[in-house]
Amino acid sequence: MEISEAISTQRAIRHFSDRPVSDETVRTLMEAATSAPNAGNRQQWRFLVVRDKETKRRLGDWYLQAWTETVSRIGDEAYTQPYRSGGVLGEQMENIPVIVLACIATGSSHITGGLDTRGASIYPAVQNLMLTARSLGLGTVITTMHTQFETEVKQLLGIPDQFDTAALIPVGYPAPDVSFGDVSRGPLDDVVYQDRWGNPLD
Amino acid sequence: MEISEAISTQRAIRHFSDRPVSDETVRTLMEAATSAPNAGNRQQWRFLVVRDKETKRRLGDWYLQAWTETVSRIGDEAYTQPYRSGGVLGEQMENIPVIVLACIATGSSHITGGLDTRGASIYPAVQNLMLTARSLGLGTVITTMHTQFETEVKQLLGIPDQFDTAALIPVGYPAPDVSFGDVSRGPLDDVVYQDRWGNPLD
Repeated sequence: MEISEAISTQRAIRHFSDRPVSDETVRTLMEAATSAPNAGNRQQWRFLVVRDKETKRRLGDWYLQAWTETVSRIGDEAYTQPYRSGGVLGEQMENIPVIVLACIATGSSHITGGLDTRGASIYPAVQNLMLTARSLGLGTVITTMHTQFETEVKQLLGIPDQFDTAALIPVGYPAPDVSFGDVSRGPLDDVVYQDRWGNPLD
Repeated sequence: MEISEAISTQRAIRHFSDRPVSDETVRTLMEAATSAPNAGNRQQWRFLVVRDKETKRRLGDWYLQAWTETVSRIGDEAYTQPYRSGGVLGEQMENIPVIVLACIATGSSHITGGLDTRGASIYPAVQNLMLTARSLGLGTVITTMHTQFETEVKQLLGIPDQFDTAALIPVGYPAPDVSFGDVSRGPLDDVVYQDRWGNPLD
């Protein structure tokens, strides 16, 4: 698949069929993930491919709990509307063929500005995984709700102290009534400036 | 270009030719960036496209200073070797056709686990930009050194307090003696586990 098509149709998929995902396909996704740029090419990442049903069920329980608390705390429907399928995602997680946990080494603090720039060495890998999944007809969604249970998740999966989880990505073929399709975004000129904040793009 | 080819040949490019990059091409890159997944599809990102030479020169000065200090502080050649071209990048930044600053809203703290998960809403966009650049024959490299001068950079570009910079991405056609090519990574089984930390992948 052309990269432009994968990018323009990479919708978040939260409803999956039970069609299996082969080990070979998982390896293809992991090769794509680990080809991503990362600081100094030190590859300080790890990827956990979770297929064990009981492990997925526990991850789903935490996801559901975090989602329920977040939605009820925020309350604003306009804000929570995009997450409306989050409950289903948590409830159904045990039935999703593959759950990927993307992890990044702690190392020294990388917060020299305002943002933890370790994300620059793991989220591009997650995006490679998700775009490649899209090109193979697989649905994904990048989630971070589970980090509200970071300690519990790390204990369950045996993740050592020197690593943090960065994202939980369900992977599977979309449910029959779900389709990929053009992503919906606001006008480019609302978010892209030239040379200085607020200047319109040439 | 097929997505698999873009992913497998997306090398960091730090030497650029002076061939111009058209406004239309920049828009294509920005469309790709803003198609990326992001939390709740709230699109809390902004992208600054810097073409002004004096602005690029000042960004390059800070980059060079941050790079020089980082390399001398760490000292370890094995660690700093991948950054050996960083000095050239800083010195030459004013001559690179386009510098993109990717920014993300501060919002409330998103550090519920160990990592600031706001990165999940900006670095996938940066990767879309870079993969699309690759498919158009343009070189890029994701950098974060400038965040050591976050305050100064924000002041120069007029970035308000409610946004942090996440990455600085030079964009241009590669210098004549520079080529794309297969990325170099360690064995998959060193970094991918199944079901639990340390278990080999099926």
